[in-house]
Amino acid sequence: MTATTENGSIAWKYATEGFGIENLPYASFAPAGQEARLGVRIGNSVLDVPAAVNADAAASSALRAAVAGPNLDALLAAGRPVWEELRARLTALIGSAAAAAALEENLHDVDAVRLQLPFTVADYVDFYASENHASNVGRIFRPDQAALTPNWKHLPIGYHGRAGTIVPSGTDIPRPKGLRPEPDGVPTFGPSRRLDIEAEVGFVIGAGVPEGEVKLADAGDHIFGLVLVNDWSARDIQAYEYVPLGPFLGKSFATSVSLWVVPVQALDAARVTPPARTKPLAGYLDDSNAEPWGFDIALEVVLDGQTVSRPPVAGMYWTAAQMLAHMTVNGAGLRSGDFFASGTVSGTEKNQRGSFLELSWSGKEPLKLDSGREMSFLEDGNTVGIRGTAPGPGGTRINFGEVAGRIRPAR
Amino acid sequence: MTATTENGSIAWKYATEGFGIENLPYASFAPAGQEARLGVRIGNSVLDVPAAVNADAAASSALRAAVAGPNLDALLAAGRPVWEELRARLTALIGSAAAAAALEENLHDVDAVRLQLPFTVADYVDFYASENHASNVGRIFRPDQAALTPNWKHLPIGYHGRAGTIVPSGTDIPRPKGLRPEPDGVPTFGPSRRLDIEAEVGFVIGAGVPEGEVKLADAGDHIFGLVLVNDWSARDIQAYEYVPLGPFLGKSFATSVSLWVVPVQALDAARVTPPARTKPLAGYLDDSNAEPWGFDIALEVVLDGQTVSRPPVAGMYWTAAQMLAHMTVNGAGLRSGDFFASGTVSGTEKNQRGSFLELSWSGKEPLKLDSGREMSFLEDGNTVGIRGTAPGPGGTRINFGEVAGRIRPAR
Repeated sequence: MTATTENGSIAWKYATEGFGIENLPYASFAPAGQEARLGVRIGNSVLDVPAAVNADAAASSALRAAVAGPNLDALLAAGRPVWEELRARLTALIGSAAAAAALEENLHDVDAVRLQLPFTVADYVDFYASENHASNVGRIFRPDQAALTPNWKHLPIGYHGRAGTIVPSGTDIPRPKGLRPEPDGVPTFGPSRRLDIEAEVGFVIGAGVPEGEVKLADAGDHIFGLVLVNDWSARDIQAYEYVPLGPFLGKSFATSVSLWVVPVQALDAARVTPPARTKPLAGYLDDSNAEPWGFDIALEVVLDGQTVSRPPVAGMYWTAAQMLAHMTVNGAGLRSGDFFASGTVSGTEKNQRGSFLELSWSGKEPLKLDSGREMSFLEDGNTVGIRGTAPGPGGTRINFGEVAGRIRPAR
Repeated sequence: MTATTENGSIAWKYATEGFGIENLPYASFAPAGQEARLGVRIGNSVLDVPAAVNADAAASSALRAAVAGPNLDALLAAGRPVWEELRARLTALIGSAAAAAALEENLHDVDAVRLQLPFTVADYVDFYASENHASNVGRIFRPDQAALTPNWKHLPIGYHGRAGTIVPSGTDIPRPKGLRPEPDGVPTFGPSRRLDIEAEVGFVIGAGVPEGEVKLADAGDHIFGLVLVNDWSARDIQAYEYVPLGPFLGKSFATSVSLWVVPVQALDAARVTPPARTKPLAGYLDDSNAEPWGFDIALEVVLDGQTVSRPPVAGMYWTAAQMLAHMTVNGAGLRSGDFFASGTVSGTEKNQRGSFLELSWSGKEPLKLDSGREMSFLEDGNTVGIRGTAPGPGGTRINFGEVAGRIRPAR
C-alpha cells in the first residue's frame, strides 16, 4: 500500500500481509474532508470503529463511550474489560460474512484516509533494555570502563523524554542544531554532524494508577498495545550534554511513532521468555515465575529503500512488564496515555544493530551501501523506515507497519 | 493565614505581607461546594476572576474566553497580550475604590477556599543552574573529579522530569521505595534512607511554539509566571540509578509546586543581571546585551517550623531566558503548560544551601536543630516548607507563599 500521512510529505510502501483478522491494529484516521475518529485496520481497509460499534446492538454503553473520540484516548482510559470487549466485537463482526457485508459502508480504503498520532502522550519514558545495545554504546563512549555500568543488570535503566515532540510516522525531521564537542574542549554551535536513529518498540499505557506500584502480574491491565519507535538521536549533541543528568537536546527534537497500535492480544503467539538473568533480581522485577512479557518482533531498518539492519526484539534483557513495574515502584503514578519505549534494539550480530552509531562503530567502520557509497550518520534527504512483524496464531504474521521519516536540512 | 489544600492534610502559616496590588498572583480555587475557577489574590482574599471579568464592560472577548476555565490553562494559551490585558484590568478594578466595592461579592476569604494545581503540566524540565549547587554535588558525588563537569559553563544542563507527578503544595509525600546501593555492590530494595528536598524556582510557560527556537529576546512572550518548587529527591535511589542516563526514580515520585503563580510583570523590581560569565557563550545563550532575566528572590527552607536555610536565587548562573532558549534551540516545540525549574538554589554560604545533601554534606556534617537533635536527611513526619519573597515596586515585597509537604511512611 501507499499511505500519505497528515503532513503529506512522505509516501511509502509496505506489504499488505500481516493485517488479517488476527491483528486488527487501531489508528486515528480521517476520511477526506471529515473529522478524525478511531479506526481498525483489516487488510487494506480501515473500519470506522464508532460507526461499527454504534450499529452493533450487543455493544455495551461503556464501549460506545470509549470509541466516541477522535483517537484512542477514551479507549485507553476505559480499561482492559472494554479493550477486550471491543476486540471481541470487532473480531465477531469482521469474521462473520453477514456482518462483514453490513460493515461495508463503514470501510475506507487505507490509501484514501489521513492518519494522525493515535493517542495523546502523557509522560514518555525511554528505556535501555537491550544488553547488546548498552554494551556497544559503553564500548564506544566509555572505552576505558566496563561495557555495562554496574547497575545495568539490576534494574532497567530509563529516563524521561519529551512527550510534546512525539510525532507520527511520515513527519519530516529537520536536522537539529546544538552544541557539539570539539577537540579543543570549546563546543561549537551548529547542525548536528552525527544524526542517528534508534530502532525501538513502544508500549501504550491505559488505565492510570495514581499511586503507582504496578506489579508484574498486573502489567496486562495497563499495557494496551505496541507501536514502532524511531528515537532520533543527535550523537554529537548528546555526547557533549549528557554528563551528569542524561540525554536532553540530543533526543528531544523528535521521536517518531508508527501509526497503527497493535493490541497486546494480537501478540499472544509472539510472547517469548527473556534471556536467562545473570544477576539476582529484586522481588518486584523477578519474573522467573511470571507470564512471559518478551516479544518475538522482527524489526527491519530501511535506509532509502535498502535494508541495513534486522534487529531482533526477542533477545531484549528487560521485558515490558519489568519496565512498567520499575517505573512505578517508587510510587510514581501512571496516567492513561503514558508511553514508554524499549531503547534501541540490537542483536548479537553486526547486521542486527539498531543505530548507525553501532552499525558504523561511531564512524570508524562506515557502512557500504548497495550504491557503493559509504555512510556513517544520516545526511539531509535520507529517509529511514523501521518496519516490524511478529508471529500470529496458526502461522500468520502480525504486521506493525512502519515508522518512517525523512531528514530535512537544519532550519 | 492558615490555608488548607485540596487533600486537607497540612495547615501552615505565612505572612500576609507581600500580597498587595503589586503582586496579584493567580490560583485555581474552589469556594466550598463549588467548581474550581481562576482566582487572583489580594491580601487575604481571592477574587473570582471570571466573575470580575464578566462584569467588566471593558474586557475583550479574548480575555473573557481566556479566564473561563477551571485553572490557568486557557489563559496560558491565550498569549502575552491577553496576560497583559488581564493584569491591567485587575489592577484597575482592584485599585479603584468604586470598582473594589462592586467586586466585594466576588471576593472569598483565602482560608475558606480549596486550592488546587494551578495549571495542567505539559512537559516538565528540571535544570541545574546554580553553580554553587552543581559544585557541591560534584564534590560530594564525584570527589575524584573537577567539581563542575566541563560542559557546565557552556550550556544550562537539564533533563526531563515526570509531569504526571507534579503535585500542589500541601500534598503528603510518601517515602519512595527503590534500589539502594550497598557496600558489596548488590543493591537492596526498600524505602529510601536519604530522602531530601531541592529548593527551586519554577517557570510556567504559555503560548506554545511548535518549532521551538525561542530567542532570548522573546522569552517574555512565553514565560507567564513563577512558582516555588520542591523537587523531592531520594539520594540513594538516584545515586544508584543515574549512570549513564540521568535521574529517574530518585525524582519521579513527586515534585511539589506552590499554589500561587506570580506573574512575571510583578517581578520587574526583582530583575537582576546574572553573575559575570567566565566562559564564552554560543550566540543563542549570549545575554550580555539582553534584558536581565535573573530574579532577586529570597528563599527560606523551613523544617518543622525552623528555618534551616536561606537560598538566594539572585546568584544563579543561568537565567530563565537562557534555559528557555536552550531547551528549544534544537527545534523542540514548546507547548502552553510546559514547565521548567531552575534546579536547586544554593548560595555561597553553608546556610544558603538548598538541599539537605549539601546542608549535611552527604550526612558527614549533620545539622544541629534548635531541639538539639541532629539530622541529615528527612524522617517520616517531617514537614518542609519553602517560602519566597522578592522586591516589589516602591519598597514593597512580592510574596510567593509557600510550597509545603509532609513525609509519610513508605506505603
